Amino acid sequence: MTSGSETAQPTARRGAYRRLSVAERRAELITAAIALFAHNPPEDVSLDDVAAAAGASRPLVYRYFPGGKQELYEAALRDSADQLQECFVEPETGPLSERLSRTMDRYLAFVDGHAAGFSALLQGGSVAETSRTNAIVDEVRRTAAGHILRHLGATEPGRPLRTMVRTWITAAEAASLTWLDDGRQPPKEELRDWLVHHFVGSFIATAVNDPQTTELARSALVSEERDGPVGILLRQALPLVYEAEHLL
Amino acid sequence: MTSGSETAQPTARRGAYRRLSVAERRAELITAAIALFAHNPPEDVSLDDVAAAAGASRPLVYRYFPGGKQELYEAALRDSADQLQECFVEPETGPLSERLSRTMDRYLAFVDGHAAGFSALLQGGSVAETSRTNAIVDEVRRTAAGHILRHLGATEPGRPLRTMVRTWITAAEAASLTWLDDGRQPPKEELRDWLVHHFVGSFIATAVNDPQTTELARSALVSEERDGPVGILLRQALPLVYEAEHLL
Repeated sequence: MTSGSETAQPTARRGAYRRLSVAERRAELITAAIALFAHNPPEDVSLDDVAAAAGASRPLVYRYFPGGKQELYEAALRDSADQLQECFVEPETGPLSERLSRTMDRYLAFVDGHAAGFSALLQGGSVAETSRTNAIVDEVRRTAAGHILRHLGATEPGRPLRTMVRTWITAAEAASLTWLDDGRQPPKEELRDWLVHHFVGSFIATAVNDPQTTELARSALVSEERDGPVGILLRQALPLVYEAEHLL
Repeated sequence: MTSGSETAQPTARRGAYRRLSVAERRAELITAAIALFAHNPPEDVSLDDVAAAAGASRPLVYRYFPGGKQELYEAALRDSADQLQECFVEPETGPLSERLSRTMDRYLAFVDGHAAGFSALLQGGSVAETSRTNAIVDEVRRTAAGHILRHLGATEPGRPLRTMVRTWITAAEAASLTWLDDGRQPPKEELRDWLVHHFVGSFIATAVNDPQTTELARSALVSEERDGPVGILLRQALPLVYEAEHLL
């Protein structure tokens, strides 16, 4: 990144710095860091890499992030977490399964674009992992759960419903990691449909023993469309279930 | 632990040491460490605590574990992982849901008895977490997946089935952590039934798009009993599904 005229560049750069506000320069460094952390595990990213990618000097990076790489990593994570939480925003209209499908399209696009950072963070044991980074990840999970429960219309969710939603979120994370490990196979749309079907299966399994979930499942089913994910799932699952006559 | 006659005890202890083989003494230290790590986060357990609990001296603990607390923690984890993997051993006879229920009874008893260590390990960010401890956790997950796939009769499991099993294992871990956080509520049997139902829901949701899973689900259903977990689940879920006539 520093090849070319070594004497001319510093002046040009200082000129560039002056045109950026503190907030802009900081945002630029974070953007460069996110791009690097997205495609490389944290241990393989140096402050020099971030400086080079942002066309900045190492001292300048330290001026903005006195805590060095760890502080920059956390700032990048904070910013990524905000982006991810924006993926979860979905209007509360139409069949629930369609809302979930659209949200998962955005989520999987995010996973796709932040692969290395996403894996490092969720697989644990990363050198950059701290109680602060874990708190950010937990916040994202809580936000996701809050959105799902609101879409379901659960203002005071009981334990079974909360556990179901929390475990589904964990399942979605695990499936995304597997998807990245498997070279992004199957196609994103297939993984999305499976995650939506998985949610429905888990929702119905929870409904059988929990009256609150039963009520919510009942009203969720009313809004579903025949050719939507739930209609397709039910019409394909029933023949399999009917074969087990001795259980019905 | 060192109260009482300070002059007499060392002799008595040396006497006790002599009666133990190296392997026995090592096992005793690990057992003491497991008990401490089970009920306290790793950062709150000191080598002195382990020494005291085992009725041993700090130098003796160092003789067996020159790497100190981290080495002892890893040895305790290794031993716990072996115990946990024994929980997964289940004869391959009878309905699959009953086999899974029995296995989950043993698994939840293990979680119950190793609460603090289990949480610290799986929640991440523990001071004792390293690539080696993560490798042990991954090994346990792989063993669990191997058992499930063998019971299902999947000799060459395809991607959908592997992802389903892997995500269910993650869901079981997440539900167990929630259960510990919630003061071990609901009762263990209720959590076990939910996990089994959740498996069935997820299995059927996967079967609708994957021919291999469909075949395995079909033969699994044949072996189920009317009053077993699957029979109960299906008879309770169907009325809910039938209400959504427009989808069928």
